[in-house]
Amino acid sequence: MYQLTARDIRRRNRFAVLQAVYAAGGPTSRQEITQATGLSFATVGNMIAELLDVGVLAEQGRDAAGVGRPRARLAINPARGVLIGVDIAETAIHFDLFDLAMTVLRSVETAIDPAATEPDAVADLIARGIAELTPVDADRVLGVGLSVPGLVEPEGGVSVFSPYWHWHNVPLKALLEQRVPHPLYLDNPLKASTAAQLWFGAGRDVDDLIVVTLRAGVGIGIVIDGALYRGVTNSAGEWGHTNLVLDGRACRCGRRGCVEAYVSTRGIAATLREVAPDSPLLDGDDAHVLAAVATAAERGDATALEVVERTGRYLGVAVANLVNLFNPRTMVFGDVVANLLGAPLLEITRRVAADHAMSDTFHAVTLQLCTLPHNPASLGAATFALDGFLTDRETFGSIAAWRATRTTT
Amino acid sequence: MYQLTARDIRRRNRFAVLQAVYAAGGPTSRQEITQATGLSFATVGNMIAELLDVGVLAEQGRDAAGVGRPRARLAINPARGVLIGVDIAETAIHFDLFDLAMTVLRSVETAIDPAATEPDAVADLIARGIAELTPVDADRVLGVGLSVPGLVEPEGGVSVFSPYWHWHNVPLKALLEQRVPHPLYLDNPLKASTAAQLWFGAGRDVDDLIVVTLRAGVGIGIVIDGALYRGVTNSAGEWGHTNLVLDGRACRCGRRGCVEAYVSTRGIAATLREVAPDSPLLDGDDAHVLAAVATAAERGDATALEVVERTGRYLGVAVANLVNLFNPRTMVFGDVVANLLGAPLLEITRRVAADHAMSDTFHAVTLQLCTLPHNPASLGAATFALDGFLTDRETFGSIAAWRATRTTT
Repeated sequence: MYQLTARDIRRRNRFAVLQAVYAAGGPTSRQEITQATGLSFATVGNMIAELLDVGVLAEQGRDAAGVGRPRARLAINPARGVLIGVDIAETAIHFDLFDLAMTVLRSVETAIDPAATEPDAVADLIARGIAELTPVDADRVLGVGLSVPGLVEPEGGVSVFSPYWHWHNVPLKALLEQRVPHPLYLDNPLKASTAAQLWFGAGRDVDDLIVVTLRAGVGIGIVIDGALYRGVTNSAGEWGHTNLVLDGRACRCGRRGCVEAYVSTRGIAATLREVAPDSPLLDGDDAHVLAAVATAAERGDATALEVVERTGRYLGVAVANLVNLFNPRTMVFGDVVANLLGAPLLEITRRVAADHAMSDTFHAVTLQLCTLPHNPASLGAATFALDGFLTDRETFGSIAAWRATRTTT
Repeated sequence: MYQLTARDIRRRNRFAVLQAVYAAGGPTSRQEITQATGLSFATVGNMIAELLDVGVLAEQGRDAAGVGRPRARLAINPARGVLIGVDIAETAIHFDLFDLAMTVLRSVETAIDPAATEPDAVADLIARGIAELTPVDADRVLGVGLSVPGLVEPEGGVSVFSPYWHWHNVPLKALLEQRVPHPLYLDNPLKASTAAQLWFGAGRDVDDLIVVTLRAGVGIGIVIDGALYRGVTNSAGEWGHTNLVLDGRACRCGRRGCVEAYVSTRGIAATLREVAPDSPLLDGDDAHVLAAVATAAERGDATALEVVERTGRYLGVAVANLVNLFNPRTMVFGDVVANLLGAPLLEITRRVAADHAMSDTFHAVTLQLCTLPHNPASLGAATFALDGFLTDRETFGSIAAWRATRTTT
């Protein structure tokens, strides 16, 4: 039987406290955090002491209202340092510099040359983008989180499998450590987008949710009892390569009929080719085709509307399967496909899923679009860096020892 | 963020201790239980004190070997009472009387008249079977666990949905309480079979497993971190009605292409009708057809082998989808389809799943047949009764108060 270690519990409690502080949206109190988290007052007090000590939280005056001694107001201390979030997609890399309030201070984006996707070339590109965002006082960077496509084994930082670049067991973390002077935290976009929802999105209100990422690759992040479910080898949620159509379209993974072959950017371009092989919307790469379909659908173009309808039908069946298996409270749809096709796609998906899922189970779930203001993959990756910074602090020595180091440098 | 209550933790710890005692297969010690569970010695001591007090465990002499004071040997006390497990299937009801060592003392089976499936008639049949197994000293029955087809809301004992009998919101627990003088615990066969695996099967060694039930209905039980995952309305695991073939065969649920329409007893009969519409194996109801296919396949009948091959192909794709989504350590296949088609079906399923699942994820999982000696549904239902007995004892008054009552009657 699985037992949480003291460190796991500490990490969950710290996350709960930070989540409550972020959700408060402004200065808050120990009492409010205790109420929001359901943790004991003592546990909240310990976590806050640690977060104050490390400088991630700061006291902001005291609340003198009411009886008893005045209550300290607590808030995130944005000046404590910065985090860098990196979203490595198939054709481009997006970099965000965040302060600790998770405000984006600066962003850059770099195209990936499709002819230069060998590991060293990609690592160079990543390092260049990070360097560009690094402030002059480089040790203000508490960590860099990277969302890497494919199956990622986060402990070793190995990109186990990235079908787009034909990567197998690439030690990306080691390649980056040679180039980047900051602590690095890697995981895939499904895990990163889900972390973003947990910290700042639907996960604030709901403990059982599924975060659906729809881009060149598609997949889900599964949140159970408020925590990301990883499976036994960190590969849970590979929904994109579950079978939707027996002996259906060829998928890039080499199999046939995968969900991804229908509802990814590429899948949608393929649907357009089926609906209207000579369509003028079929211009440029898959991302351009998707954007053209979205624009045309908005102005009522019949071909584009038919593509959206078919995409929603595929998505609806695949979503119903998830509803039946996981019986979640909320499903959030994010990334470029959801952003561009938006409410009309969601409406068709909801209608089809209602027909295909068990009715009581379907009534228990809410399907919604992602409303996070940032790129969820880079935001989530930055939370890995924040979580890693706090956990590593705890592991690599007492906070007092660390402060002594800071004072002497 | 989800917080376990003190009662939840107590229940999990009690389960862990009992699971370790059952797994020991004979008298064991506090030290061995501490080692097997990973719990603290103090927690194990508390749980054992409670289980001794309530009479479920008994001390069996002392182990004088080694230094220090002799260690008490502990074992299940089979004489403490009996449990009744009831597996209500579509066409028959199976009743088992267990002692607390979970040895079957006696079994009965009753056919359900397909023309008499209204709730009162079924409740009468169930009550009659329970009465038949009840010992003369009726208060030795600590509880009755019932596995009920369909979606069950266990708290209220309401059979939310049973497609076979056209039941909707049937208050089965209330109907039975009018007829049966013992505490009743209801859930569906997926949950019951999974509980049986957790207590006595694959769940002893593995914390992340999926229990696949293949009978007239099919579905899965999902075990995550050593605990049954129920979803937000206790409906998780309705794999039987996930879509396998877009616009495929009609399913009894009214939808098309569900997994159940292909790999249930009925699905296999339908496959035989496709392969050989005039086959002599097509005699009697679906259960008879399945048995005939199994016997014919064993003697090398080409038609039967083709049916097994096609069933394994459907099952393999559906299993690959689960492997990709859940990334489990073990999948156990049980109930009548797995029992009758056994290793040949599993072999085809494994081959097809290997082709369809992500390869690293597939390498992490073991597919195996259920090896429990009893009907897993009635065994698992009986564990609900044992768990319920122990939890209710705790809730409805101190054990001392309960013992006082026992002494005065």
